[in-house]
Amino acid sequence: MTASFADRHIGPDRDSERRMLDQVGYGSVDDLMDAAIPEVIRWHGTLDLPPAASEAEVIAELRALADRNTVNVSMIGLGYYGTHTPAVIRRNVLESPAWYTAYTPYQPEISQGRLEALLNFQTMVSDLTGLTTANASMLDEGTAAAEAMTLARRSTRSKSSVYVVDADTLPQTLAVIEGRAEPLGITVEVRDLSAGPSALPAEFFGLHLQYPGASGAVRDQAALVAAAHEVGALVTVAADLLALTLLRAPGEIGADIAAGTTQRFGVPMGFGGPHAGYLAVRKGLERMLPGRLVGVSKDADGAPAYRLALQTREQHIRREKATSNICTAQVLLAVIASMYAVYHGPDGLRSIARRTHASAARLAAGLRAGGVTVASDVFFDTVTASVPGRADAVVAAAAERGVNLRRVDADSVGIACDETTTDAHLASVWEAFGVSPYTGDVADALPADLERTSEFLTHPVFHAHRSETAMLRYLRRLSDLDYALDRGMIPLGSCTMKLNATTEMEPITWPEFANIHPHAPAAQTSGYQELITSLEGWLAEVTGYDTVSVQPNAGSQGELAGLLAIRGYHRSRGQEDRDVCLIPSSAHGTNAASAVMAGMRVVVVACDDDGNVDLVDLDAKIEVHADRLAAIMVTYPSTHGVYETAIASLCAKVHDAGGQVYVDGANLNALLGFAKPGRFGADVSHLNLHKTFCIPHGGGGPGVGPVGVRAHLAPFLPGDPLAASAGGGAAVSAARHGSAGILPIPWAYLRMMGAEGLTRATGVAVLAANYVAARLREHYPVLYSGNKGLVAHECILDLRPLTKATGVSVDDVAKRLIDYGFHAPTMSFPVAGTLMVEPTESEDLAELDRFCDAMIAIRQEISSVASGTWPRDDNPLVNAPHTAAMVTGDEWSHAYPRSVAAYPFGVSRVGKYWSPVRRIDGAFGDRNLVCACPPPEAFE
Amino acid sequence: MTASFADRHIGPDRDSERRMLDQVGYGSVDDLMDAAIPEVIRWHGTLDLPPAASEAEVIAELRALADRNTVNVSMIGLGYYGTHTPAVIRRNVLESPAWYTAYTPYQPEISQGRLEALLNFQTMVSDLTGLTTANASMLDEGTAAAEAMTLARRSTRSKSSVYVVDADTLPQTLAVIEGRAEPLGITVEVRDLSAGPSALPAEFFGLHLQYPGASGAVRDQAALVAAAHEVGALVTVAADLLALTLLRAPGEIGADIAAGTTQRFGVPMGFGGPHAGYLAVRKGLERMLPGRLVGVSKDADGAPAYRLALQTREQHIRREKATSNICTAQVLLAVIASMYAVYHGPDGLRSIARRTHASAARLAAGLRAGGVTVASDVFFDTVTASVPGRADAVVAAAAERGVNLRRVDADSVGIACDETTTDAHLASVWEAFGVSPYTGDVADALPADLERTSEFLTHPVFHAHRSETAMLRYLRRLSDLDYALDRGMIPLGSCTMKLNATTEMEPITWPEFANIHPHAPAAQTSGYQELITSLEGWLAEVTGYDTVSVQPNAGSQGELAGLLAIRGYHRSRGQEDRDVCLIPSSAHGTNAASAVMAGMRVVVVACDDDGNVDLVDLDAKIEVHADRLAAIMVTYPSTHGVYETAIASLCAKVHDAGGQVYVDGANLNALLGFAKPGRFGADVSHLNLHKTFCIPHGGGGPGVGPVGVRAHLAPFLPGDPLAASAGGGAAVSAARHGSAGILPIPWAYLRMMGAEGLTRATGVAVLAANYVAARLREHYPVLYSGNKGLVAHECILDLRPLTKATGVSVDDVAKRLIDYGFHAPTMSFPVAGTLMVEPTESEDLAELDRFCDAMIAIRQEISSVASGTWPRDDNPLVNAPHTAAMVTGDEWSHAYPRSVAAYPFGVSRVGKYWSPVRRIDGAFGDRNLVCACPPPEAFE
Repeated sequence: MTASFADRHIGPDRDSERRMLDQVGYGSVDDLMDAAIPEVIRWHGTLDLPPAASEAEVIAELRALADRNTVNVSMIGLGYYGTHTPAVIRRNVLESPAWYTAYTPYQPEISQGRLEALLNFQTMVSDLTGLTTANASMLDEGTAAAEAMTLARRSTRSKSSVYVVDADTLPQTLAVIEGRAEPLGITVEVRDLSAGPSALPAEFFGLHLQYPGASGAVRDQAALVAAAHEVGALVTVAADLLALTLLRAPGEIGADIAAGTTQRFGVPMGFGGPHAGYLAVRKGLERMLPGRLVGVSKDADGAPAYRLALQTREQHIRREKATSNICTAQVLLAVIASMYAVYHGPDGLRSIARRTHASAARLAAGLRAGGVTVASDVFFDTVTASVPGRADAVVAAAAERGVNLRRVDADSVGIACDETTTDAHLASVWEAFGVSPYTGDVADALPADLERTSEFLTHPVFHAHRSETAMLRYLRRLSDLDYALDRGMIPLGSCTMKLNATTEMEPITWPEFANIHPHAPAAQTSGYQELITSLEGWLAEVTGYDTVSVQPNAGSQGELAGLLAIRGYHRSRGQEDRDVCLIPSSAHGTNAASAVMAGMRVVVVACDDDGNVDLVDLDAKIEVHADRLAAIMVTYPSTHGVYETAIASLCAKVHDAGGQVYVDGANLNALLGFAKPGRFGADVSHLNLHKTFCIPHGGGGPGVGPVGVRAHLAPFLPGDPLAASAGGGAAVSAARHGSAGILPIPWAYLRMMGAEGLTRATGVAVLAANYVAARLREHYPVLYSGNKGLVAHECILDLRPLTKATGVSVDDVAKRLIDYGFHAPTMSFPVAGTLMVEPTESEDLAELDRFCDAMIAIRQEISSVASGTWPRDDNPLVNAPHTAAMVTGDEWSHAYPRSVAAYPFGVSRVGKYWSPVRRIDGAFGDRNLVCACPPPEAFE
Repeated sequence: MTASFADRHIGPDRDSERRMLDQVGYGSVDDLMDAAIPEVIRWHGTLDLPPAASEAEVIAELRALADRNTVNVSMIGLGYYGTHTPAVIRRNVLESPAWYTAYTPYQPEISQGRLEALLNFQTMVSDLTGLTTANASMLDEGTAAAEAMTLARRSTRSKSSVYVVDADTLPQTLAVIEGRAEPLGITVEVRDLSAGPSALPAEFFGLHLQYPGASGAVRDQAALVAAAHEVGALVTVAADLLALTLLRAPGEIGADIAAGTTQRFGVPMGFGGPHAGYLAVRKGLERMLPGRLVGVSKDADGAPAYRLALQTREQHIRREKATSNICTAQVLLAVIASMYAVYHGPDGLRSIARRTHASAARLAAGLRAGGVTVASDVFFDTVTASVPGRADAVVAAAAERGVNLRRVDADSVGIACDETTTDAHLASVWEAFGVSPYTGDVADALPADLERTSEFLTHPVFHAHRSETAMLRYLRRLSDLDYALDRGMIPLGSCTMKLNATTEMEPITWPEFANIHPHAPAAQTSGYQELITSLEGWLAEVTGYDTVSVQPNAGSQGELAGLLAIRGYHRSRGQEDRDVCLIPSSAHGTNAASAVMAGMRVVVVACDDDGNVDLVDLDAKIEVHADRLAAIMVTYPSTHGVYETAIASLCAKVHDAGGQVYVDGANLNALLGFAKPGRFGADVSHLNLHKTFCIPHGGGGPGVGPVGVRAHLAPFLPGDPLAASAGGGAAVSAARHGSAGILPIPWAYLRMMGAEGLTRATGVAVLAANYVAARLREHYPVLYSGNKGLVAHECILDLRPLTKATGVSVDDVAKRLIDYGFHAPTMSFPVAGTLMVEPTESEDLAELDRFCDAMIAIRQEISSVASGTWPRDDNPLVNAPHTAAMVTGDEWSHAYPRSVAAYPFGVSRVGKYWSPVRRIDGAFGDRNLVCACPPPEAFE
């Protein structure tokens, strides 16, 4: 038989499977799964999915769907603009496995390339906004603005609960802000602030301004900022970064926070996403930032090195006290946007902005010459034209000419220019308005008193890569510093680093998927709609839910959406008081942070020694909070990688008390085809399409976190941010379908695997984890292996006895694995002092064995420390990772030879991956916070 | 201003240009060019090209052209088949700069990745054909068959000049064989050998068989082979590799040579090319092979290492006595084909073959059931159906259903199946024939007595990379071993390693360019035709010729086509005796080898001490050979990188004697926009689109070598291999438009650069060479710098005095440059003991300076040898390149420290490129010839 896609996706072939089963002690994968999965949750049907298609068939089907999307010129604007992705960046970042298969840079030593790119991003945002610290990206402009609101709330002494939003704000941003505000008890007041501070209320804790406004108008907001500061409020300016190359920066007018999107910096619109939002703050607020922040620190040799900074702010550490529930950034897209700035440099960006503005100014001049009133005299790229009663006709006439405009209302039309705007586009717009082509002179329409005079992007990195050759080499050099799935295994527990197949990836850069505005008319997006509808249907089928929404653009947003649906459900039944969310102590911190954002109180339920929910404590907590019980959030299989047998009774207890059951879908890779959360008692789950469903991790984003619910919760799923009246709950993402642009990936995966392939993948994933556990058990204790000695899809290796005996820590083993050519497993989660290994179904037996061999060899190294052969403070573990510069040094005074440092057991002398830096001192960086590009001299 | 494409293509910006001019001592590029280029050849006009378009505009224009090609299902066959390029291979080879920007592996130490891939290719061909030695690929099946003919001629003792070709041979193969045979005095006799040996003539030196035949018939050819051997003839079997997975191999029936194509192993049809032809020979003939051959040798530490074997056969060394004029292989395509075999393995290939055969068998059964006669009872993938008088109607009916069939003649239709054939395709074919769908049983139609019983692809490499993850990592690992343009400069004199821009590359993998059969009906290829017509026109404009043909699929084939045009011209005027080709002693060996293939005698003209043609000797040679003078072949600027001032008078002298002037276009990058060979006296040139016009070198192919001629030679340009009656000269490639599939690259380059960009590129290329010469002159003598002290686009650095004084050789410097992070310049060509550096316009000043700094640092290292600081036999030069394994060794007893070995001046300690092997002993490998994958144990 020719290999099917499933044969390519699943690493072990039938022969390997046999050998793995022998090691684990089962006769077949079915036998193993029968033993591993409790019958109480087991589902014995066959998934109702279309039969698996071949790669060629799927490409043909996606081609047909793509052909049903119409790629019009988009002049709709509203935060989504046409942009030219430089081809060298598209090919060598967006289409390069070295970038897109990388994991989140928790292991900074092997992530220096993407960390440098993110530092460029932060520097770019910080420079352009005129604020001191920017984070490594947000999910989109809407959520960035919502996070800015909560940041303001945390940071102000104002007792007001009022958040003022200027009326000229992007409508989807307003929708997301309102959705976020309501459960937190924040009152959003929308005010027309065009008249200035007099329109502000007396008391408010924060103010949101759009710059330029949604209408295109550019206003001097300094007085508003000053007025807000007078009452102790913080001000967020949602600013267009391209406009900021010509206009005074938010920081220069006193703003405390800037938020927005970097989409137009080379990232395709993708029917709404993904792209990188941004958030920047003035000095003093940096420790209040949500999300990822990259900072500069130093390695064991004192060399500058990058790593994630101030992680103590984050949900995985701070749980319900975190600055936000977000676990990730939009790294891949942030890299693209930052490289766009690196490639164009400040002069190039300014030139693009000027060209964009010139198009808008010419457009407006032509409209005016033709007798059409244009709303604002000063604007950057967008003009709002007044056409009483004719808006629909004008929009339709433009669409006929291949140009999409914004219907503001029946009487006005918005037109946004961008770097792709051509004279032909302007001509089409004029035609649609029924005015003559304009060839006269055009004056600048930027406000003279807001002209930017400050410099930006002065760092050499924004000046050194101006030729395509130089850019290509910079991208290659950075990616060569990093370790991603294209080099070897990334056995991260709970993160499911499986194959991101090329056939899944190819369609996302097709123009018919990439270049669609989220507000494009429905008639132009029928391909997308069918793709989304079928994907939501398949996801519902595999999870056993009734309805799925793909809107949440990260797992954290899926959690929030799911909890908001529960909240909405209770409230619809008059049970506003139900606000207690039970969360087991073993849960991922995100759960708790999300519950807080959904307006709930977190009550922790204890776990027993095996990591299972303590049912006695559960009973007690339910009893205490019975009337207030809103939900329980559990992960299944548990974060300990165990199929808890009590799950069904747990669900029943909560239901009996009037609560809802939220099952975190992070570990769905252990269930697909064998159990359906929607069938074994859960009411709602979010899925992680970047885990089980093959969206690449992209070095730390994009993620996609759809939420699935049973029918009674369906009315409370996220609504359309542009059409609140259409029903549904609050929008959790700025775009109706979230990160629609990458949904072809899970679609293709499901389509190519079919029911049988998905089920086999689950079986092999569980087999692989048990194989690793079986091979390593005699070397490291395996925790929580259930009553039959089996784990689910991941296993926890206990280092604590060894650490106690030898001082060799989990960190040491993780860093030493780099020397062996591996990414470390998850460290100290869910149990401190352990490593959690999730091999997934995609690793073949040779790679699984290479990993087990490395772990066994490391165990022997630990023995050499234990025996005193090597001192505790000078051995290959504590000194790991070893750089080439270190091992080739003229001096070598270590207790072990160079060859042991560089080429431990099994490592080839040819083509070894070398860590570019030695172990990084994270605390030093947190104490000396630097979050922008250091000067080149720092590296000398 | 926003950067134009020219600004991205050309490395130095205006500021850098200024600094470079200062170093060289000129006020402007114009001044420099005025001084450098002799006025006698200078052309002062502006190139008549469309104005430069932006990258986005060019993509839109190519999209429009692509949309004018219709991608029908191709069942035409005849050596071109539908195939599924595995997406992981497309993205990570064909679309990966790490593979496609690599140079020919003359520096084997930094080419181990692609050399391994080519060794896999050779092993695959050798295994499947059952012959001992295969080369690293040929240009296409037609030229491979022609080379097989000349190989047979060289290798036989037969005195016959007759070459017998079976009538069931692919028509384009026959055309190329005939075109090659005629100038060499070989008589091609086409015989219908279906009746067996009785149809053979009494005397012949070689026999060409097709297996399966063009008609699809599969015959046992053992008796024919035996009969040929009886008369001392050698037998070539042109065999389909996919069929060979099921059928007895040529080697197993006694064939001496096998030739063919590997296109259907994952390489798109590309309207004819490029793809990798193959050639394999039985034991004893390996030293007769033309083209590239990869072999296994060992490095300075005794580790196995790959490099090109038996280079003494080749034209660059053996000149007119070479086995062929070909300078290159189709490396990039050979890599794809080999990886296809690696990915599928023997079982997968067999399965694809069986499925393909099953389609053909079902098709035939259906036709027969419907009353249509099918010519042969046994076939592999192709059936010929008899439809008296109806062939045109059937072909048209199929085309209407989206399927292209082969019109054999008015009464018969050929239908070829392949791995992409589906039931729907068969249904369309049946419909076109007017027969009912067939659902009955189908028997195998393979001849039982020719069933393959021998194993193939038993080497582990064909079994270890079966999952996509494993394949991805294998591709990454191999490419990481190599140094290509995406890492740094490749300053190869005469090879013009400039930017291969992504926008140029993207369209070639669009289905509308990739998936077109070369014999597709003209109505389906109007986009291709317009692209080719406009490209030929632009190339004519920039070279000053009247007509250009893009048919030659390599520079060598362009030379042959040009010389054949000259030959045809003389013969058309009754001057059959003109057969002397004057070639300067400094010429590239290819010139001489091509002249021999064109039936000419090579007469060498001396050069003076400056590398210029010795006009006195020229006069003398013209006088001696006046009546026999056919042509002179000169390279301009000369191979010494000098603009010879005497070129015009040289042209006049040859013309006066009745000869034609051939200007080798290898150095066109020094002329474009400033001089046109067709205007300064030449009659014909070939161009290298993989040099001046940005087709990537692909690690040693594909090349494209169009030939341009003045009007009087136009009638003798290569004709259509399928339509000899349409006029023109002999076809030099199997496909009418040669490697059409990659012509979008030069098209896009010309379209985006425009007249001004091309001219500026030439100026900056010359400036860069003079800048390097100016910076290095005080450290190394610069040879041949013309009367104003200027070089053209490359410069020659003389190492001979240093070698004499210190023993440090050109090789040592070249290999030491690897340690510094560079690819070596051209070594010892055109002058032994020198390095020739061509920086091209694409390297920015930072990279030029990095190179000059490295060369100066190396000069200081040589001084340390001269002064005795380092012994002659133990210094960083003679030991270069240094591997990481060497420098991290536990022992270090060298006369210089490790840090000097690893990180000499200017080399970053982060992200260094390490040579994977130490210096390779080429002679050892030639003495112990191994040209297939060595067993894994060899590497232990």
